[in-house]
Amino acid sequence: MKTKKFQKALEKRKIDLALFCTLDSDSFDKNMFYFSGYKGMGCLVVSKKKKPFLLVPQMEYERAKEASRCRVIEWKKGLKLFEALEEVLAKQKISHATVGVDQSIFSISLYKSLRKHLRQIKVRDITKDCLQLRAQKTKEEIQLIRKSCRIADSILKECIKKFHTFKTEKEVEVFLHTQTIKRGCTLAFDPIIASGKGASMPHYEPQEVTIRKGFCVIDFGVNYKGYHSDITRTIYLGNPKEEERKVYSLLLQAQREVIRSIRTGKLCSGSYKETQKILGEYAEYFTHGLGHGIGLQIHELPNISPNSKEKYQNNQVFTIEPGIYMPGKWGMRIEDDILIYNGKREVLTKVPRKLITIKAGSH
Amino acid sequence: MKTKKFQKALEKRKIDLALFCTLDSDSFDKNMFYFSGYKGMGCLVVSKKKKPFLLVPQMEYERAKEASRCRVIEWKKGLKLFEALEEVLAKQKISHATVGVDQSIFSISLYKSLRKHLRQIKVRDITKDCLQLRAQKTKEEIQLIRKSCRIADSILKECIKKFHTFKTEKEVEVFLHTQTIKRGCTLAFDPIIASGKGASMPHYEPQEVTIRKGFCVIDFGVNYKGYHSDITRTIYLGNPKEEERKVYSLLLQAQREVIRSIRTGKLCSGSYKETQKILGEYAEYFTHGLGHGIGLQIHELPNISPNSKEKYQNNQVFTIEPGIYMPGKWGMRIEDDILIYNGKREVLTKVPRKLITIKAGSH
Repeated sequence: MKTKKFQKALEKRKIDLALFCTLDSDSFDKNMFYFSGYKGMGCLVVSKKKKPFLLVPQMEYERAKEASRCRVIEWKKGLKLFEALEEVLAKQKISHATVGVDQSIFSISLYKSLRKHLRQIKVRDITKDCLQLRAQKTKEEIQLIRKSCRIADSILKECIKKFHTFKTEKEVEVFLHTQTIKRGCTLAFDPIIASGKGASMPHYEPQEVTIRKGFCVIDFGVNYKGYHSDITRTIYLGNPKEEERKVYSLLLQAQREVIRSIRTGKLCSGSYKETQKILGEYAEYFTHGLGHGIGLQIHELPNISPNSKEKYQNNQVFTIEPGIYMPGKWGMRIEDDILIYNGKREVLTKVPRKLITIKAGSH
Repeated sequence: MKTKKFQKALEKRKIDLALFCTLDSDSFDKNMFYFSGYKGMGCLVVSKKKKPFLLVPQMEYERAKEASRCRVIEWKKGLKLFEALEEVLAKQKISHATVGVDQSIFSISLYKSLRKHLRQIKVRDITKDCLQLRAQKTKEEIQLIRKSCRIADSILKECIKKFHTFKTEKEVEVFLHTQTIKRGCTLAFDPIIASGKGASMPHYEPQEVTIRKGFCVIDFGVNYKGYHSDITRTIYLGNPKEEERKVYSLLLQAQREVIRSIRTGKLCSGSYKETQKILGEYAEYFTHGLGHGIGLQIHELPNISPNSKEKYQNNQVFTIEPGIYMPGKWGMRIEDDILIYNGKREVLTKVPRKLITIKAGSH
């Protein structure tokens, strides 16, 4: 991806090289994947001048070579990662007086080990540099996110269409998950299917319970070739009261107006405040941020919350997801993925937003 | 789980309290889940004397209360996590001069923030304490892992039975994944279906390619209620040559003999060396560790590798998975999950290990 731009940023900050490490099979460093296309065990070195390279254990050597555009060097057996790295840096005469790491994911243990084996170095935090770089997507990334949104859209549409056939929340989850896999994707996150009072918990986990009457929040997205989509719809089981329809309309109005007023250069926190204003007496039950960037991670920049200092920029993709949660009673949320491209805003997720009601007892 | 035992360990090390934090939706702190049953955003405080409690944001409050055995306190809005924590600790008069964190997952950013808001504290590493505590499973955990192995077993058996119906590696992956979900589980890790020369990469990713002739490695496991299973079988497509049968038999013999010689008190590195000895001329193509503990993580203690200092202990569950990988040519691995309980060893995964051959062209 934008390696040259990143190298310029390193140079400007007087950082000789950036280090991205994945040592744990539980999670991988998204920056490593971003710059190299590889997501296994090992370490990516992006020096400010030379071409990036991967240092990987013997067992990953072949795989890394297939997956990555970068040069791959085998991590010498019997050595600790940073011992092996020091040897390579010395051999290749790569200066490393100042090393940048992403401190939001670099663990204290890793830091200690780095300090132990590369003793004289200065360490700088490059969390923001990486996040800001990745916040503005390349054309290829936008294509992948578009596809990710299209797939999520089509699965969610089908899910709502056959919603009356599901008995439990868990069944809905299994449907969403299996459809995701059949289309060659994985889940972007554990889907939320929150019916009845469950909907009052923004991060509710679907249960083996019969779907309850009232509002039901479905929050779902897929991961297509590393890129996430994230969409929420709230449907209604049974006959909504006039009052319930009104609250839903208010939420939908808030989401629509806020999306319409988004433009590059505008403060993200401004959108949050507008939402609160429209929600009026319900604003105190809107208990989370208004939105977040999506990309290789499900939560990236921009952060659209009251304290955010960010402004909308070109080539960003982010969610707008106002919600209202009445503790122990009900909840609702409407979420779409928005792209700003050539200064124009586009809603990438297309499932209709009008309140869909499903006959109670028909499921 | 073993909270009291952990509190005693804290007391012994003169640590006032342990802090476990999850701030990122990408991954959660397994220790937090272990002690509290909750796996969302927030922070778990285990003090050496008082009952553990969770500090969670408003939006997670209801959910945390449902999920957790612990007391739940709402993280005061507008405050940073550790600001909110300091208030709570002061109010409840919980001493916190010395704080333990798991440095293998605690990020540098989090550490800096902790230092900023709780200025006078000493910080101690409790990585090993947590890992060692979790290495010996409780009865409930053993039951969950048993179930996890049983489910993985039954899916893998079915997969092998209908292997001739799959065209591509990816199809096999989709089958394994959908079956996993239908049984209420998630994948323990991305399954490996590595046919032909792909099998020479221990962490190969299944492709949209027709399954190649020769050895095919299938490495798969499920996550059942948080607990992992991990099993590998190598099958053969076509008619194996005498030589190929011999190598497979050698690998199987190595795995069997090594498992048979496991007992509490024995050095894990001993098993590794025995494997190498049996593999003889093939030992140099055995490029990874022999095994690892499984539980809430797919890689836990014990670490069964040449440099491990650990000894097998009662109530441990771990894999034994020797493999042989001929770069660019072929590969094979046989992996089972072993439990030591009441001093007795038990193989929890039961899919037959004898080399299964599938007619080439029948798929």
